[in-house]
This record gives sequence, C-alpha cells and structure tokens, in this order.
Amino acid sequence: MFTINENYLKLPGSYLFSNIAKKVAAYQEQHPEKEIIRLGIGDVTQPLAPAIITALHKAVDEMGNAETFHGYAPDLGYEFLRKAIAENDFKARGCQVEADEIFVSDGAKCDSGNIQEILGLDNKIAVCDPVYPVYVDTNVMAGRTGAYNKERENFDGVIYMPCTAENQFVPEFPEEVPDVIYLCFPNNPTGAAATKEQLQGWVDYANKNGALIIFDAAYEAYITQKELPHSIYECDGARTCAIELRSFSKNAGFTGVRLGYTVVPKDLKCGEVSLHSLWARRHGTKYNGAPYIVQRAGEAVYSPEGKAQLAEQVNYYLKNAHTILEGLANAGYTVSGGVNAPYVWLKTPGNMSSWEFFDTLLSEAGVVGTPGSGFGACGEGYFRLSAFGSYENTIKAIERITKM
Amino acid sequence: MFTINENYLKLPGSYLFSNIAKKVAAYQEQHPEKEIIRLGIGDVTQPLAPAIITALHKAVDEMGNAETFHGYAPDLGYEFLRKAIAENDFKARGCQVEADEIFVSDGAKCDSGNIQEILGLDNKIAVCDPVYPVYVDTNVMAGRTGAYNKERENFDGVIYMPCTAENQFVPEFPEEVPDVIYLCFPNNPTGAAATKEQLQGWVDYANKNGALIIFDAAYEAYITQKELPHSIYECDGARTCAIELRSFSKNAGFTGVRLGYTVVPKDLKCGEVSLHSLWARRHGTKYNGAPYIVQRAGEAVYSPEGKAQLAEQVNYYLKNAHTILEGLANAGYTVSGGVNAPYVWLKTPGNMSSWEFFDTLLSEAGVVGTPGSGFGACGEGYFRLSAFGSYENTIKAIERITKM
Repeated sequence: MFTINENYLKLPGSYLFSNIAKKVAAYQEQHPEKEIIRLGIGDVTQPLAPAIITALHKAVDEMGNAETFHGYAPDLGYEFLRKAIAENDFKARGCQVEADEIFVSDGAKCDSGNIQEILGLDNKIAVCDPVYPVYVDTNVMAGRTGAYNKERENFDGVIYMPCTAENQFVPEFPEEVPDVIYLCFPNNPTGAAATKEQLQGWVDYANKNGALIIFDAAYEAYITQKELPHSIYECDGARTCAIELRSFSKNAGFTGVRLGYTVVPKDLKCGEVSLHSLWARRHGTKYNGAPYIVQRAGEAVYSPEGKAQLAEQVNYYLKNAHTILEGLANAGYTVSGGVNAPYVWLKTPGNMSSWEFFDTLLSEAGVVGTPGSGFGACGEGYFRLSAFGSYENTIKAIERITKM
Repeated sequence: MFTINENYLKLPGSYLFSNIAKKVAAYQEQHPEKEIIRLGIGDVTQPLAPAIITALHKAVDEMGNAETFHGYAPDLGYEFLRKAIAENDFKARGCQVEADEIFVSDGAKCDSGNIQEILGLDNKIAVCDPVYPVYVDTNVMAGRTGAYNKERENFDGVIYMPCTAENQFVPEFPEEVPDVIYLCFPNNPTGAAATKEQLQGWVDYANKNGALIIFDAAYEAYITQKELPHSIYECDGARTCAIELRSFSKNAGFTGVRLGYTVVPKDLKCGEVSLHSLWARRHGTKYNGAPYIVQRAGEAVYSPEGKAQLAEQVNYYLKNAHTILEGLANAGYTVSGGVNAPYVWLKTPGNMSSWEFFDTLLSEAGVVGTPGSGFGACGEGYFRLSAFGSYENTIKAIERITKM
C-alpha cells in the first residue's frame, strides 16, 4: 500500500502567488467592468529586447537544419553561455568564479527549491522573516522542519531572522547557530540591499560556524548604489561557504523564457565531499538542461547590444520603482526599498492587516499587490508593490492609491 | 555545522550517460582521425519539423511585442497546450483524461525524477531490470533504498523485476508486493512493448494491492502494431492507480527543446489525499513552467501539418530501427525490440560483458552504444543501439559492426 509524503500536509493553503491569482480571478469575474492593475507577482511586462529576439530567431533557424540542430544540452549548460556568465557577472567584478562552477538551469525558483536536496535532513535552516516562500516551503516538503505553528504563523524547527524597520530589513545573526542560511539581497520582498560589510559579516559568520549560505542574487541588476555588492563572491572566503543563485527573469525579462544558473564553487566542501559534485549529480540525474534556443538568448544578454538594451529596460523599471516610492511617500505612506530593488515595501495604513489592505486595494483602487504577511509573520502589516508593471499603469496605480 | 544528503554517496559513479560521454570524449581525443557514430544516448538527429519552426518563430515575435509578451506561465501549463494534449493523446484514443489533469513540464526525465518527491520515504519501489537509471537513482537520492550491493550490482530495498529473453522482456508480478511500480512501455532500454492484456494485468494488480504505477510512455509514438496500448488509461481502473509520464523528445525531436507532461488523474488518491493536489503543490512551488515559446511549439505538434511531418519523422527513425534489427539478425546477432520502439536490444556475442562490447564496438567499429549492464544487473551481456541517428550513419554503423 503506497503512502504519500506527509510533510506536504504541513503546508497551510497553497503557494502564495497561486492564492493571489485565484483571489484576483474571482474578483474580476464578479466585476468584469473593472480594470485591474497587477503590481503583485513580480512578473515583468516589457517585451524581450531586440538583441534577444534576434538571437532566438537565429537559434530557432539552427534547430530547423540537420547540420546545426541541437539535441540534449551538456549537463552543466553550453560552454558559450557559462563562459559569458563567468566573464561578465564575475570576473568583470573581480570575483573568482570559473565557467565550470556554473550550472545553467531553467530559473532561480527551481534552483532555490531544488538546492536543499543535496543537504542532509538534519540541517537547521535560517531564513529572513519576511522571506520568499520557496525557501521555507521546499524545506517543509523535504521534512527538514517541524509542524506549522498557528500561533506564531510559521514553522517549528526553522530559525526566523526578523527583518524589521529597526534593523532596516537586514537581519542580525540569530541566537541559535543555523546550519544553512538563506539570504537574498537586494531582498525580495523588502527591497533592502546589504552592504559589502554586512555581507562579509555573514560570510565570516558562516565560515566560523561551518554554516552554508544560499545566496539569492536574482535582483542584483537593480543595484544603483555603486558600493553595494552584486555577488557574494565579492566577499573574502565566500568560496568555502556560499552557493549563489542567479536569474535572467528580472535583468532580461525572462520570466516566460526560463533561464537561471547556480554557482557552486569547487572549494565548497562538507568534510571531504564536494558540493559541486553533489549538485552535478543532482543536475545530471533529475534535470535535462535549458533549451538550446533559450541558452542562446542568454548569451545575447551579454552582447554589447544586449547589455545596452537591458540597461535601458532595468532603468525603465527603476523609474517605476521611484514613481511608487515617491508617490506613496508624498501620500504619507511609510515606504522603503525601491532604490536598489524593483520592489517597494510599505507599511499598511491605520494598522490594517496585510490581507485587509490587499482586499481594500483591490476593491477600491483595482490594484493588486502582495500581502507582506504572505512572506512571513514579520511581514504582517506590510505590503509589497512591484515595479514591473508598465510606466503608464504604475502612474495610474499610484494615482488611484493616493486617492483612496 | 551543515551536513550533506548522505544518500548521494550510495550512488556508484556518475550518471550512466555522463559516463559514456566522458569515455567517448577521451577516445576521440586519443583518436582525432576516427569518425565516431553515436547510437548511444538516444538523442535525436533530425531537425525540428517545419510546422514547429514556424510556431517557434511566431511565438518569438510575440515575445518581442508588449501587447503579446508572455511572462510567467500558468502553473499547470497553458490551456491551449493542455487542451490539445487531452484531445489528441487521450480522448482520440477513448481515454478519459481532462486538460486540468495534465501538468506541462520541461521533460519526462525531470518528471520521472521528481514524481517520487510527493511519496512517502517508506514506499518500496519496484522497477524492471534492466531499467532507465533515473527511476532508481532518484529514489536512492531521496533515501528510499538501502545501500548499493556490489555482489548483486543493485540496491538493497528495491524490488527488481527481471526482464529477460524468457519473459520476452515484460516482467512478471514480483514475489514481494511493491508500493510503487515503475513501468515503461514501449520499453527503454529493451524496446519491448506490453500488450493491452499485460498492462491491464498490472493495473488490476495495482488496484488490488493499493500500489501506485508510474507509467512512462515516452516512446508511445513508435508503436506500429495497432492493438498495443499507447496510454495506461486505455486500461480499466488506471485512473485510480496510475500516473503517466509523456515526452515530446522522441515523437517531435524535442530533446534540446525540452517539453513533457505528467497526467495525475483526479481519481487517484491515498486515503483522502489527492495526488493531483500534491503534484500541483510541488509543481507550483519548485517549478516555474515551460517557456511560452516551447509550449507554442508543443501545440504545433498537434496541428494537421505538425502531425503529418512528425509521422514522417517517426517513420524515418523506425526505418533505422528496422535497418539495425535486420542487419544484426542477418549477421547472426540475437536481437529484439526495434519494432514498436526506437531501440534495438542485442545479446553481446561470445559471452562478452556489456562494457567489453562497448569498448570493442568503439575501438573496432567507431560506434557508440549503451552497455546493457548500465541499466541493471539483468542487462549484463546485452547492449542497446538507438535508431535516432541519421539513416546514412545507421547504414554505415551496421556495415561496420557486421564486418567486425
């Protein structure tokens, strides 16, 4: 008689963004006349840049010809892409990351969910609170946590590190020493960025305590302050304690194209065992590579035209972020983020709960955002707005919100 | 202090096909003048069909335009694709499978590796021997097996069901009743196909014993005998005991495009818990959808032009299979498969081991195949040749082998 993975039953409700989608669909069905502006899920709206489109067409043509057809991709990803990544994302910033330490994938969501599979079930994980739900949910599914605690609104057996206005949304070292630490800077959902000093502090802490850092740098393209680190490998010693996750979703608008990568340095070991070899085994056994045409699109991100066009695209979204930040601040909201990140984090007015504010915003302004409490207990009373809408919609949304 | 998933250390060596790739690369480096014909990994060689290429270009253009741009895909996959699948792959064959029971993915390898995650660790799995390595390896990684037994050359705690010449490579029910049964027909690696009666027997067995069948139908397009089942849902009662995995890799040449899907019927339950809801949770949390352009390519597989072109492509490979089968039989080899499958399974001559034959074939004929023992202990003394090469290369390979 077969049994199911009972850990799944610990998860309350469904995935946050699926929940929101269902709520919005239900509202739209009841009010078909209302025009809804979606600043919720963090999905991009600008079309792919011309350099990407050209690369995709070219690769599609290659696939239509026996001489240039590509079947299964190499396990780690095509070398043309891994070399471009190593050169542009790391060596150009003074980081030592080699092409064969890069594992190309179909996105940072998958990688951030899958990476825990190579770790023991006895590891105690630490996450920021609020936090991107995938880190915790996938550890729950694997059985690395206790039950859901209804009072605290989080899981037993997980170390939550509060990110609050008091610490400017960058966590302090927890009292209990964790085994695995998930960090994301620029942060989703708060939009906070870590300084080089703060990040170096975490690297030193991890090396001292034998902890592993899983560093999610999906939003690094939005950093505007020059002194801030884009990669954890800008810190001394990160190669012996950190894995870094990267995405093409936000810097190149690939949410519907699907491309990302994970860096596992060869110096990263647990005793004698190399984490690089474990991830290679996982990658080779449970994954079959990103599509050839998509990897060629990824390569175009690093071409001179691609870089110029994507810098413009990122600036477009940063202008939205600025519009949200300034508009809400002028309307009296307490806001943060939005300077080095595409997300603005706002305090709900009048002590409203996050979901109350979600419902109010949807019904009164026709704007969809993400309830802070969906990201963790410390997110209660906060709300995330995304800068990934169109400029016109962003302006309109802020006008509607400020009139509320 | 963080720990690793020690189960990974049970796996001997690396993934079979990574191993072969390394061996071939080393040989080619030593003998740069030799022309090697690859009939090993099962990768296709024919270019994408014109209907697919047209669909890809059109979708790429949509992605370059703000009005038709597509970001994150719906969790289960786009409805246009799921509807086409339900209609063509199931309803047209009289199977009851609805569009919302279909989960679009980036391939059957990933799905066949990931599906075990929703199951308890206490399940005892049964696999054919020989078998596609992913089923066992991913269960080893998850901790659902014992250690590797060097004498038996397989894992403790797994029920291996011998597929031999005696049972025409279709297994009998095992002595010990398993909880989860992996079946693949037409079979990889043996090329054997199950009759409707045999498959119905397995469905009845599973329903009687509360077992779950994971049915891999990646090769159904190669069935030439009309009476053979293409889907397990052609059997009565399969909706309460079986999950089916499908791939676009072999019927449409998508090995480098990446598309597949999994069917989880809503009637499939463990007690009160619906496996559909568990897989939806896994899909929504650890996966972010197949690329929009790839899903449009998948849709084109079901267009009238797509169907006609792909039937031709499948026939091309079936002609190769026939060439291998006939050529080797005439040369005195004992062969099977190749009629309803793109794989020919041959007995190595003169009691050679599978790897001995691999080395001989590589050095004497410059042909790469797959050692049967790489698929399991009962594969020892056997060898798999793939029909996915070009016709010219297939002819040449058979000429070289018969001259050996």
